[in-house]
Amino acid sequence: MFIGARAVQGTQGEIRGISAATGEKLDPAFGGATKDDLDDSCRLADEAFDTYRNTDPETRAAFLEAIAQNILDLGDELVERCMTESGLPRPRIEGERGRTVGQLRLFAQVVRAGRYLDVRIDPAMPDRQPLPRPDLRSRMIPVGPVAVFGASNFPLAFSVAGGDTASALAAGCPVVAKAHSAHPGTSELVGSAIQKAVASSGLPEGVFSLLFDSGREIGQGLVADHRIKAVGFTGSRGGGTALMKIAAERKEPIPVYAEMSSINPVILFEGALKERAEAIGKAFVGSLTLGAGQFCTNPGLILAEEGEGLNTFLSAAAETLKEAAASTMLTPGIHQSYCQGVEALAGHNQVETVARGKAGENFQGQAALFATSSEAFLADPHLQEEVFGSSSLVVRCPDRDAVRDVVEALEGQLTAAIHIAESDYPQAKELLPLLEKKVGRILVNGFGTGVEVAHAMVHGGPYPSTADGRSTSVGTMAIDRFLRPVSYQDLPDALLPDDVKDSNPHKLERLMDGKAVLAD
Amino acid sequence: MFIGARAVQGTQGEIRGISAATGEKLDPAFGGATKDDLDDSCRLADEAFDTYRNTDPETRAAFLEAIAQNILDLGDELVERCMTESGLPRPRIEGERGRTVGQLRLFAQVVRAGRYLDVRIDPAMPDRQPLPRPDLRSRMIPVGPVAVFGASNFPLAFSVAGGDTASALAAGCPVVAKAHSAHPGTSELVGSAIQKAVASSGLPEGVFSLLFDSGREIGQGLVADHRIKAVGFTGSRGGGTALMKIAAERKEPIPVYAEMSSINPVILFEGALKERAEAIGKAFVGSLTLGAGQFCTNPGLILAEEGEGLNTFLSAAAETLKEAAASTMLTPGIHQSYCQGVEALAGHNQVETVARGKAGENFQGQAALFATSSEAFLADPHLQEEVFGSSSLVVRCPDRDAVRDVVEALEGQLTAAIHIAESDYPQAKELLPLLEKKVGRILVNGFGTGVEVAHAMVHGGPYPSTADGRSTSVGTMAIDRFLRPVSYQDLPDALLPDDVKDSNPHKLERLMDGKAVLAD
Repeated sequence: MFIGARAVQGTQGEIRGISAATGEKLDPAFGGATKDDLDDSCRLADEAFDTYRNTDPETRAAFLEAIAQNILDLGDELVERCMTESGLPRPRIEGERGRTVGQLRLFAQVVRAGRYLDVRIDPAMPDRQPLPRPDLRSRMIPVGPVAVFGASNFPLAFSVAGGDTASALAAGCPVVAKAHSAHPGTSELVGSAIQKAVASSGLPEGVFSLLFDSGREIGQGLVADHRIKAVGFTGSRGGGTALMKIAAERKEPIPVYAEMSSINPVILFEGALKERAEAIGKAFVGSLTLGAGQFCTNPGLILAEEGEGLNTFLSAAAETLKEAAASTMLTPGIHQSYCQGVEALAGHNQVETVARGKAGENFQGQAALFATSSEAFLADPHLQEEVFGSSSLVVRCPDRDAVRDVVEALEGQLTAAIHIAESDYPQAKELLPLLEKKVGRILVNGFGTGVEVAHAMVHGGPYPSTADGRSTSVGTMAIDRFLRPVSYQDLPDALLPDDVKDSNPHKLERLMDGKAVLAD
Repeated sequence: MFIGARAVQGTQGEIRGISAATGEKLDPAFGGATKDDLDDSCRLADEAFDTYRNTDPETRAAFLEAIAQNILDLGDELVERCMTESGLPRPRIEGERGRTVGQLRLFAQVVRAGRYLDVRIDPAMPDRQPLPRPDLRSRMIPVGPVAVFGASNFPLAFSVAGGDTASALAAGCPVVAKAHSAHPGTSELVGSAIQKAVASSGLPEGVFSLLFDSGREIGQGLVADHRIKAVGFTGSRGGGTALMKIAAERKEPIPVYAEMSSINPVILFEGALKERAEAIGKAFVGSLTLGAGQFCTNPGLILAEEGEGLNTFLSAAAETLKEAAASTMLTPGIHQSYCQGVEALAGHNQVETVARGKAGENFQGQAALFATSSEAFLADPHLQEEVFGSSSLVVRCPDRDAVRDVVEALEGQLTAAIHIAESDYPQAKELLPLLEKKVGRILVNGFGTGVEVAHAMVHGGPYPSTADGRSTSVGTMAIDRFLRPVSYQDLPDALLPDDVKDSNPHKLERLMDGKAVLAD
């Protein structure tokens, strides 16, 4: 563990990485944090906050870039440890490392550009009648130390130095990370990369700490700690809602950004099925089985009107799925949950099994495709529960209205994809307003499993896909989660923060009396 | 009441306005809403949502302006009813009406400018390696129907057509307002102005409803209703936290923007006291007794180091306060709470009474100024509870560190004011980072009681001054509370909403590949 500048062997229970493929325990043994470790981390984060948030943009941006470089410098040791702990193959882990590093570098650009500060200046009007107007300036400031919970399914891109950490650090918030027990070795390596960057950037040690938790006490204690001002979490609905409850019951409630569960409906329109049902079926299985189906945006629900097109799609999907190799899942526990979810669907009296992928060994997930009627789907809310892994459910709808009824009945989702031909545009246009209310991202003729780290990305959505649909956890907009506005009235120039000074030393875009003015 | 286009006499209990000055009941009798009325209002709001949110900017802006005009057209009937129900004098009510109307017109400008939509476009890169980049576009969309609770202390500017309603309507959210029982007649008049504007603008009737509540059931039911997606509230801490609890326990939790309580510390620095202690003392009493002290930003706490300067300030404040006339408070209930709060301070064994204003009659509040030591203040958390009305507590600090200790111990506040001379700048600079963490607005050499409706205004602050310190309830930034982002991936131009089309028909500022591009 890293408590500020110290590397500490935890004393509260033992945590070991497990080989995802074989289930065997890995060396070394890590130790869980005590309450004192938690207290030390939060105290250091709080002490570091003012210094860190007042670093100039260049220092903070260079710090994020140093983390990225240090992660790359870990080289193959990181890749191999991560592969062993997660069961994910080398190209995926290398790709994910690239994304993690790219994300840190993109946030460095965001920090340099400074647009996130949303600087506004309403100059004084001393002669205004009946009352003079004061000089008013505002900017966004960071909320304070942030707790980040690593996710099991993205051991790099959504874990210790993942999106939540990158956006919180970019905002100016110290981070206390809780390592996911599924990849302690990976977490330690990445944590060391951050700790090194803190030291080499001359930042106060409390900017980053990493804790292991042998149970749930430390994670829950972190959310309850009065010095923590926001929480980033990616994981199960049960885990997320438990943290939301703790945060809401604090003396000072704080925001929880939990990304929890989503079945990501895919809607196949008539014209698209007529044109290319087979191709869609094959592409769908490719998306479904990618990374053993362990994506938040995995296509878990297919909606279409009954007919020849749907049958062709189903045949193509079934044929492709039967050939799909089983893949090792992230942890034995996740594998077990997946098997239970699949068994429940297979045993449901209104659900037929369309196809299964190849059987695997040990903790490999066997892909599964099921089908049911819209009537049955609407009658049983359990059918819209996420089965984490490569399992999907096709809902046969007798007509267009039934498709709409099913969408209406869905809970909030991260994504929805529609597959359309030009002849489907009028019908798609009718459905779009409903989809906008249900999801954070709408895709055409694709699947949600590729989540681009960009300015216009929204990886969020109405509850329960996330705890707070007003935000995103991927893309540059994610920085807004960790900011709050402060207004300065009639401060003399000598006391104004640089960001809102007339001289605009950081060359920021500003809203002057309501009009946007670019930096140059 | 107004349930969409219908004017309805409620049947659930009787609600009557009360003359704030005399306590006598006013005609007519209003009736409380039933659960069916609540259900009808929410259903209509939900049905109106898609049409309303897709109105073009000009229609929505003109609608806000029509509300403003209709309020002015109510003429003296509104002013007089409002004066009677609130006990506030004519200039204040006319000023507040001006603010209410100005606020609606300002949001009309915000709607026309469209910057709040935060349009972002990341064009496709089909040739990118290793994977092509999709076309990604995002914009903000409204969250859905909003429940607005009228405030007692701003019967116009923070009630039926007040800041929360204006910002929610501007965002594209239908509003179901719950009238404050302290001014039912005012609420009905203002509600009729909105209803008329809905009809004349050709909008669906559900865009606005107004409910009376003879108890708490309708207000609570409104927050619990699944069609309501956010809540705006200004009032007591007890009321606000009760709504937060209901919202957090919903199947789908929703954001509550409750503005609750604040004592707005005023810190008097040595140099300023040396230069102008007497003037500050007089100005302070002016701010304290304005509107019978019934402002959220009323200066309820004064901090200064002991010494000659503080003594001069206290003498001047005491002299001025003794001459301050008692003023009618908003309701007999508020007057009673004020008297209890003042009595508790007067009877506190560590608190001395510095001065009282002139005694009044009926429900007039008698101003009060108390003093205590920083030691006593730090020892008793009850001393930082808000006494709503013109009561303030001076905390004598033995030294600079004690001032800081008191600020550290404060809960979140809406504002903090510092009074400084140039010689105080270094010391003020040291304190500013701490103040930024405690409050939403920092003022120099003034008092927080004037809240400018502007782009750079933050009328918000860390808990418990508000439920959600990431936002403001006054100023144009308030629109952000009722928005959430949606991303569109690879949509053909024909299906894209106008806001994110390449052709940019609404001439919006956009973020193109991370670079801001102005409309012209």
